[in-house]
Amino acid sequence: MRVLGIDCGTERTGFGVIESDGVHHRMLAAGEFKTNVKDSLGNRVLQIARGLRSVIEQHQPDSAAVEGIFHAVNTQSALKLAQVRGAALLVIAEAALPLGEYSPLEVKTSVVGYGRAEKYQVQLMVQSLLGLDSALESEDAADAIAVAICHATHLSFAKRVDAAAV
Amino acid sequence: MRVLGIDCGTERTGFGVIESDGVHHRMLAAGEFKTNVKDSLGNRVLQIARGLRSVIEQHQPDSAAVEGIFHAVNTQSALKLAQVRGAALLVIAEAALPLGEYSPLEVKTSVVGYGRAEKYQVQLMVQSLLGLDSALESEDAADAIAVAICHATHLSFAKRVDAAAV
Repeated sequence: MRVLGIDCGTERTGFGVIESDGVHHRMLAAGEFKTNVKDSLGNRVLQIARGLRSVIEQHQPDSAAVEGIFHAVNTQSALKLAQVRGAALLVIAEAALPLGEYSPLEVKTSVVGYGRAEKYQVQLMVQSLLGLDSALESEDAADAIAVAICHATHLSFAKRVDAAAV
Repeated sequence: MRVLGIDCGTERTGFGVIESDGVHHRMLAAGEFKTNVKDSLGNRVLQIARGLRSVIEQHQPDSAAVEGIFHAVNTQSALKLAQVRGAALLVIAEAALPLGEYSPLEVKTSVVGYGRAEKYQVQLMVQSLLGLDSALESEDAADAIAVAICHATHLSFAKRVDAAAV
């Protein structure tokens, strides 16, 4: 299966596409869309949406995954982030991609095996799981790949449970 | 000028299009997009986006206006609302419409002349300003029209100030 992971952010939105059987993961694309904080939020979500559409068109994922939004210390930041996420959800729905949503805890547990893992630990595990020579340059791209891995693992597990139940 | 006002909501998103010279306002369209709360947020923003695109295509507004998002008592609701707003901002940016953003206080002050006006007072003033025989059936449509009137008034005032300064 081919999974698009997205790490929404108002300044940088990371993305990553993996090909995965739920155990072995291969990276097809990863990067981030950087937007100018001085630009209007409308233009920024437009840039991010265009970027995501182009990634979807190029890599044709079977499904997508994003992190949920949770109470944040800074409500204003959370509200901005939520608007970016809304635009991303629209792009995903337009592409008719099934969507998986996970908490940061689920993503970290799935990738690192520990829900309170640090950012650098996630990056290291992503590098290791993908068999990369070095860590991904963009932290946001690594986070997006982590969400994609979490989703692929989850889907594959659900499929095996279904198969076992037959 | 032709202004599209949008009142974002997770259950019902109101819209209204007016033709206005800043003093006289004529309603061209008003209504709401109702979405099923049991549906995924992705599908709901997709429905709202499609509805807004169709209104924009049909009525060709020159600009759009929405209310800003502010600290809410219920953060979870605010975060959901923000996601719908993000999708609406994307649709507006895609249509290359200049966007006006106003606080609820600004909208009420502009339409009713009193920033702490009640919802029914806004509805009555919208009805009166548009010369309608009865209040709009949808409260959300009335709110959307109020935002549009606020924006039209604001734009017209800014234009007159510019003209006076020459």
